[in-house]
Amino acid sequence: MTYKVGLLGLGTVGTGVAKIFQAPAGRHPLLPEIEIALVGVRSLNKQRDVAINAEIVTDDLESIVNDPAIDIVVEVIGGIEPAKSLILKAIANGKHVVTANKAVIARYGNEIFTAAKQKGVYVMLEAAACGGIPVIQVLKQSLGGNRISELTGIVNGTTNYILSRMYFEGADFGATLAEAQKLGYAEADPTADVDGFDAADKMTILASLAFGDRIKLEDIYREGIRSITSADINYAKELGFTIKLLGIARRVEAKDAQDRHLEIRVHPTLIPIQHPLANIHGVTNAVRIEGDPIGEVVLSGPGAGSGATASAVVADIINVVAVLKSLPNQINQLMGCSHEHYAKIAPIENTVTQFYARLLTHDKPGVIGDLGTAFGKHSVSLNAILQKNTIHDGLAEIVVVTQKVSELNFQQAIATIRDLPTLHSIPTVLRVI
Amino acid sequence: MTYKVGLLGLGTVGTGVAKIFQAPAGRHPLLPEIEIALVGVRSLNKQRDVAINAEIVTDDLESIVNDPAIDIVVEVIGGIEPAKSLILKAIANGKHVVTANKAVIARYGNEIFTAAKQKGVYVMLEAAACGGIPVIQVLKQSLGGNRISELTGIVNGTTNYILSRMYFEGADFGATLAEAQKLGYAEADPTADVDGFDAADKMTILASLAFGDRIKLEDIYREGIRSITSADINYAKELGFTIKLLGIARRVEAKDAQDRHLEIRVHPTLIPIQHPLANIHGVTNAVRIEGDPIGEVVLSGPGAGSGATASAVVADIINVVAVLKSLPNQINQLMGCSHEHYAKIAPIENTVTQFYARLLTHDKPGVIGDLGTAFGKHSVSLNAILQKNTIHDGLAEIVVVTQKVSELNFQQAIATIRDLPTLHSIPTVLRVI
Repeated sequence: MTYKVGLLGLGTVGTGVAKIFQAPAGRHPLLPEIEIALVGVRSLNKQRDVAINAEIVTDDLESIVNDPAIDIVVEVIGGIEPAKSLILKAIANGKHVVTANKAVIARYGNEIFTAAKQKGVYVMLEAAACGGIPVIQVLKQSLGGNRISELTGIVNGTTNYILSRMYFEGADFGATLAEAQKLGYAEADPTADVDGFDAADKMTILASLAFGDRIKLEDIYREGIRSITSADINYAKELGFTIKLLGIARRVEAKDAQDRHLEIRVHPTLIPIQHPLANIHGVTNAVRIEGDPIGEVVLSGPGAGSGATASAVVADIINVVAVLKSLPNQINQLMGCSHEHYAKIAPIENTVTQFYARLLTHDKPGVIGDLGTAFGKHSVSLNAILQKNTIHDGLAEIVVVTQKVSELNFQQAIATIRDLPTLHSIPTVLRVI
Repeated sequence: MTYKVGLLGLGTVGTGVAKIFQAPAGRHPLLPEIEIALVGVRSLNKQRDVAINAEIVTDDLESIVNDPAIDIVVEVIGGIEPAKSLILKAIANGKHVVTANKAVIARYGNEIFTAAKQKGVYVMLEAAACGGIPVIQVLKQSLGGNRISELTGIVNGTTNYILSRMYFEGADFGATLAEAQKLGYAEADPTADVDGFDAADKMTILASLAFGDRIKLEDIYREGIRSITSADINYAKELGFTIKLLGIARRVEAKDAQDRHLEIRVHPTLIPIQHPLANIHGVTNAVRIEGDPIGEVVLSGPGAGSGATASAVVADIINVVAVLKSLPNQINQLMGCSHEHYAKIAPIENTVTQFYARLLTHDKPGVIGDLGTAFGKHSVSLNAILQKNTIHDGLAEIVVVTQKVSELNFQQAIATIRDLPTLHSIPTVLRVI
């Protein structure tokens, strides 16, 4: 007897999945017991990078999720619709689902997992965050004995590629983005990546698993990398930092249980060059997990691409099949979702962190004094201040790094500084980890 | 209903395990359904770092593995006996086993897993290699879709601590070992660590899971770090390398299926400073896995210690309990062992790798020519040659790094060089990755 998979989508990821099943030698011994029985595509005539028997290919995707012979529906179409409806229909039909769709899970995870629980089926999502890095299973199972306090990650390959090139080559954002687009590392419309939407989707999923609560995507503070210039990268270097788009999720303890909450944010971040995420370059993703009693664990690997994502999809498929083989009518609690409550997430104003700011001022005596007074007035202590030579048109560039301060105090100080007559502009404000 | 654990051993790891179950808040929701029902210790009077109800503590370890109420036996005693016999008796009594015992698994895994298969019980070993790093489950499940081609690891914390300090402080091996012993990072008898025995045990386990075959410990080539001097570390630095005790396991392909084999070795290794394992310092462990289609994944974290190892033990316990809860009489194939054959492992002579050698020669004209001729005669091409100023007593220090050559050719060249009248001695020979 074989277990029958209905594969929705034969793009990059779907092709990768099909190729693994076509060459099972040297892989997990369960693979030959699994069959890709049906493949759903948008266009039947498109040239494919993998040979699939035409008889099992259909453009009627609904027929796959409705087919009683299918045990597991693998959704690798991407995008919200029709993916979301197909997932829900598959669940309604009692099928297990494996999905790589971070956008759907981050937005409709609640609805999907509630439906899955009612029907007693699995919804597996290893491929939905960080591609090939096995971080989902690690959070769900391997670190189950731990109380996770922090999860920090480079979870978007496109922005990490751009920032790595800016760091090593001194190039500016626009030129590097254009190059990344030419090389296929960035989409024609790069918004999802460079503005942090994709990273926020993934952090919703990762934080939910790390902290055992449901997370609302809209509660996550999000900021992209468009404002980063080569000047910022150079100052960061000089100060012993690199700049990465980080997802940061932290458990914030409090004496009063009611005050305990999470902090989840996605923004470009200065990180010290000795930090374990500082040397993750190019499209590579990495996640650093801190917990009690384990301490620090770092996982890195390819965050996207055909092979890496397919590896994660296949891991989920064999996990489901292994359970189906032994316990067809029971749910393994480690593989299901046990979250019932939404986490309390603090607004960004409550965050306590260090800041980096680059300011352009009129080159007049007393400028530094004015800045210092404004910061001091709002209880913002400074860690470092760099003043470079006048750059042009009588403007001086000043870079400050604060000590740990509340976001609210810092923003108030910045508002005060914007009103200083000596100030020209504040091109960049970044957080520091 | 709770699931009953019999804990054998209340040392560092056992204490860590007990502490996790005593404070389940914020950890996996399955924990409160699991009870440490019995604890076996060698001495009932020893002061412990954790409060355990005296009524459940016994020094009759056999009584625990024979107790019909116990579902899972957790063996964290260490050492070969009585651990091995207790594990086998627990299996014979139909109990699932969780063990952190790399020495027993590396030597008697065959017997133990065969017995477990016959009785239909799990033997879980996440804690037996690399402590808290969840590499066992990753190999068994998360990377199941991949054909693993190489697994390379820093799998011994003691030697990595020593080599890191030698690298950063320029200290010599003996002094650093003494310091490590004083700080508790090395045992009074450091043999198991510094001579690579512990690393070889772990590589037996990791390679078996990566490549899906049983591995005989005695087939693994093993070399420790006692010969490394600060001079070698400095030369390595100058050449762009660091020195680590690496476990290296590789699948060697061949056209003829009969010629396919594995290469598994543990030895101090020069690794380029950009290599993902080069910046793993101190007692941290890390494993780099290369597979198709995933590419490269790196996992790092604490390789030993109470909390990290306990984290791995508890992960195994909840994995077993999750399965027991859903259906007690079936085996999940992903958690069992499916290996039936021993791998074919090549002798070290067949290895093809780069070498580093430090030679002391009499400072006479023609020395370099003599060396070059000797290497050339055995088809050993050189990548780099460094000759420093005469150091003392008319001796010159020469360092060579070869291109990739067969171990056999290299050793023959070294034998020829040992006979050269201009040679004084060859203090160090190391391999390069």
